[in-house]
Amino acid sequence: MLKEAIYHCNDIPYLFKVGEHEVKLRIRAKRGDVSECSVVHSDRYRPPGAGDMLKLTLAASTELHDYFEGVVYAKVKRLRYQFLLTGYDGAEVWCGEYGASESRRAAGAFHCASLAAQDDGAPPSWVKDAVVYQIFPDRFARSGASGEGAATEAWTATAAPTRHSVYGGNLKGVIDKLPYLQHLGINVLYFTPVFESPSNHKYDTTDYYKIDPAFGTLEELKALVADAHARGIRVVLDAVFNHSGDGFFAFRDVLTQGAASPYADWFHVRSYPVVQSPEPSYESFGIHSPSMPKLNTRHPDAAQYLLDVAAYWIEEAGIDGWRLDVANEVDHEFWRRLRRRVKGLGAELLLVGEIMHQSGAWLRGDQFDGVMNYLWRDAMVDFFARQTTTARAFAGQIESVRMLYTDSANSAMFNLLGSHDTERFLTACSHSGWGWQEKQETARLKLAVLFQMTYIGMPMIYYGDEVGMTGGEDPDCRRPMIWDERRQDQSLLSHYRTLIALRRDNPALTDGSFDIWFVDEAANTLGYVRRCGRQCLAVLINNSPNIVKTEPNLRKLPGVRTGEPLFGAGSCEWREDAAAFTLPAYGGLIIRFDP
Amino acid sequence: MLKEAIYHCNDIPYLFKVGEHEVKLRIRAKRGDVSECSVVHSDRYRPPGAGDMLKLTLAASTELHDYFEGVVYAKVKRLRYQFLLTGYDGAEVWCGEYGASESRRAAGAFHCASLAAQDDGAPPSWVKDAVVYQIFPDRFARSGASGEGAATEAWTATAAPTRHSVYGGNLKGVIDKLPYLQHLGINVLYFTPVFESPSNHKYDTTDYYKIDPAFGTLEELKALVADAHARGIRVVLDAVFNHSGDGFFAFRDVLTQGAASPYADWFHVRSYPVVQSPEPSYESFGIHSPSMPKLNTRHPDAAQYLLDVAAYWIEEAGIDGWRLDVANEVDHEFWRRLRRRVKGLGAELLLVGEIMHQSGAWLRGDQFDGVMNYLWRDAMVDFFARQTTTARAFAGQIESVRMLYTDSANSAMFNLLGSHDTERFLTACSHSGWGWQEKQETARLKLAVLFQMTYIGMPMIYYGDEVGMTGGEDPDCRRPMIWDERRQDQSLLSHYRTLIALRRDNPALTDGSFDIWFVDEAANTLGYVRRCGRQCLAVLINNSPNIVKTEPNLRKLPGVRTGEPLFGAGSCEWREDAAAFTLPAYGGLIIRFDP
Repeated sequence: MLKEAIYHCNDIPYLFKVGEHEVKLRIRAKRGDVSECSVVHSDRYRPPGAGDMLKLTLAASTELHDYFEGVVYAKVKRLRYQFLLTGYDGAEVWCGEYGASESRRAAGAFHCASLAAQDDGAPPSWVKDAVVYQIFPDRFARSGASGEGAATEAWTATAAPTRHSVYGGNLKGVIDKLPYLQHLGINVLYFTPVFESPSNHKYDTTDYYKIDPAFGTLEELKALVADAHARGIRVVLDAVFNHSGDGFFAFRDVLTQGAASPYADWFHVRSYPVVQSPEPSYESFGIHSPSMPKLNTRHPDAAQYLLDVAAYWIEEAGIDGWRLDVANEVDHEFWRRLRRRVKGLGAELLLVGEIMHQSGAWLRGDQFDGVMNYLWRDAMVDFFARQTTTARAFAGQIESVRMLYTDSANSAMFNLLGSHDTERFLTACSHSGWGWQEKQETARLKLAVLFQMTYIGMPMIYYGDEVGMTGGEDPDCRRPMIWDERRQDQSLLSHYRTLIALRRDNPALTDGSFDIWFVDEAANTLGYVRRCGRQCLAVLINNSPNIVKTEPNLRKLPGVRTGEPLFGAGSCEWREDAAAFTLPAYGGLIIRFDP
Repeated sequence: MLKEAIYHCNDIPYLFKVGEHEVKLRIRAKRGDVSECSVVHSDRYRPPGAGDMLKLTLAASTELHDYFEGVVYAKVKRLRYQFLLTGYDGAEVWCGEYGASESRRAAGAFHCASLAAQDDGAPPSWVKDAVVYQIFPDRFARSGASGEGAATEAWTATAAPTRHSVYGGNLKGVIDKLPYLQHLGINVLYFTPVFESPSNHKYDTTDYYKIDPAFGTLEELKALVADAHARGIRVVLDAVFNHSGDGFFAFRDVLTQGAASPYADWFHVRSYPVVQSPEPSYESFGIHSPSMPKLNTRHPDAAQYLLDVAAYWIEEAGIDGWRLDVANEVDHEFWRRLRRRVKGLGAELLLVGEIMHQSGAWLRGDQFDGVMNYLWRDAMVDFFARQTTTARAFAGQIESVRMLYTDSANSAMFNLLGSHDTERFLTACSHSGWGWQEKQETARLKLAVLFQMTYIGMPMIYYGDEVGMTGGEDPDCRRPMIWDERRQDQSLLSHYRTLIALRRDNPALTDGSFDIWFVDEAANTLGYVRRCGRQCLAVLINNSPNIVKTEPNLRKLPGVRTGEPLFGAGSCEWREDAAAFTLPAYGGLIIRFDP
């Protein structure tokens, strides 16, 4: 056994609370190395040596590693524990806080001093059922006269937005489309910023307390929230607390008064006088964004101002949570304060950070419930859209992302195929190395959506993806929504509706465990199982241009003998210990096993 | 190369700030696998692909792993980075956020979104020079009449304390002994609790605002602090915030008023009425400690009360920091609040947690500066005292502990050989598997002290160790201090004094890097180098009962040709590329290399 590959630490995400007395332990080893993994555990105040033994299960396999997990019941909320790994080579290795060793004594024991001492980190209970829809307000829907003075472009299916285009979408437009959204089946709306700002994207806030007049009014937001809530749809807004716009009153004061401004320390001024060109004399977002001065969230007054903003919109407009922009450039302590403030207003309020990379440092229960899961998207794009990875690599990547985080965090991810900051998934499909075929493109998007809607976490749909919109990177991915039904891909839309409904109707898809059932590398096909209570569903994904026949072993699924297709094209036959599936090119199946 | 053994994450302790623009990166690989490790890095907002390359250095080797480290200068405080590892087998492996892979693209890149967003975590500047002395007040020194009504036992060298003995040590006694402590050379006093409590150890607080009358008065504490400060000695007290005593006013109110008490939620009451026997109806410390009810540090008023206590003694008595009892059983958020409160009173105030096991979750810069380094002690006991590990295993264990934490945390550790909660080191030496020899015992303690005083972090001396006191586990390790000079081991005391003075006089020992120079497994001997600016010291440790001749290679130490002994017994000769050392049994040497 390769002792060097073993990894565990007595901390998130390798140890985390899943109940008042339940703690999940996770340990990593080399893939295919360990035949059995157990944990010996006891109250840490009892004499060493004795203890109960719990057999862990293989929870995930990545390209290089196997992860074993188990849930220990800790009566007094504290543990001493040692792992015992048995190798396929017959080796027995102990793992404790001194390391991995054939000697139990030399390995030492890990300690979990107090389960109760961990940060709580519980996400809202509703995240498991959530299907999110992202709206870029200027581009989603326009109702009545558009905002004062805004020069609006023609809202056509062939529109090609520039960075400065204004299309006149607004909140009333969204209200008009709530029946469409309800019919689609989504139950969370995430809006990119809606507060006063000179840009079309509004990530450069002028007034955090005012709805941008181009979008509407406070009353219209309230009406939108009320109407959405009446339809069972929650509303999440976008909080841009990393930076303001240069029209923000505090920054304007610094621009005019310089060091004498009471707001001078709300920003990161490098030198006075404060100038915006040729180079800004203050820190700003990104590389060349003098119009987005970086806020000093460590300054007590600035932090208080922003926390009050977060509370205001919850209390005044009744929104259900925040997506936090550029979350990984803001200090942890500010986010902890935000969590305390927001969760103090309601445990069912959601906090999702925009972090495009490994996000462990923000997902320990003290800051965000989840993040926009771009690492997951990367794996989806590579496999389904660009077809640059195989089924085995894809399964490894998806599991790898899941093993970065706790169960709570994984349940509170925005699992997106694209956003206003990426090319659209359908467009990524056209870049496939396998040659462009329009039909395959959509088939691959449909297959990706099948995976998205049957995976752990909150599926997030970027407006228009569901009707077949295309678009390259910003600004092209921000074309105005296609409302002309003749130009919408109705088959795709129906696919979305059906899968969203299926997700909402089957607890295994919202609350169930996730396990890879098989990977058929030659056929580029994989299957996985979701199980919750007595319900057990399998999903089969043929990510190849060929008709695939595959016969996965049923013995890997205890208690499962036969089932019936719940969704998708293809056929299945039930044999003694195996099932025989036939899947069309880029086809998928959901099977409901008989209980 | 074994890709499975590679580990890095974009977070503490694998990525941490060491300056406003400097970030230290750390990566783990299989021991002996990687001949060269570099990191390619750039501003993360620049297009991918390009970047600067920094060669990392081998920072530590444990039994199973090599760790490479390097400090990257990040002009705009943010990074995109990928590791490139070259194996002794010729393999080239990239490591990024998707994993380890021969393909640079498949590996992905790690991101450090903002250095400035990390929790600050700076310890007081004085920790590097600190040598700590732990006092158990009832047993250290008794001056004048002991406290009212306390039945005191005879203060003799043969005293055998029970769990309930009272010896009458007090603060005035400590004041009397400040000249002794100053002469010893220590510059930090850490006192176990001094607040009113019915026990001899005082971990069951009755009144957090009152010095126990048996120990003295507020005025005496102030006098002690003033006198200590005048001698360049700082004072750290013990904060017991996990639990109170059952005489604490709030708990007494709960005992009498039950659920109606305004303090009912300050504790974790399981059922009413509140009873103490046969089983307490509330959570308490450990297994059977009804007299130590666990405090609910998540309750706002209880937390505020304790935070005020922490602030009071700093402001009123001028103490220099707190050691936090049972720190890993208290919630993180309480410790974060404590850090903000205490560091708000002064950045030079110290916070050290009592955590006996892996402590990463408390050492990310948001909670403690350091912990009582029991993991380090475990390695010291196994190697020097019990002689159950070899030089290679010892070096691996020490390095393994260091690699668990950031540089800051490592600099702020209480590196102890023993405490009031363990058997004394000299007694552990007598349990050596190699057979008991009194002289060897002390020689081995002296050798351990040589290591302790030349290692990173704050050496901590448990009162009396320096004069050769012995004692098994609590209560035996709490015997009254031996003040009779004829019964003190003067040679040992002189050894301590000399090494403490050496440490304080040589910046390489307080501020320098630490690198293992060589391990001579056959001779059970090792050497390491501490380097700071132009000063470079080597320490050689012969942990065997034999005279050892060893000839470590000088080529591993760039710029070093010759040197001279600064401390210890033995001899050295300088050759072309090597040095030849002769060390007596259990002997050590400090060499100062010529600049």
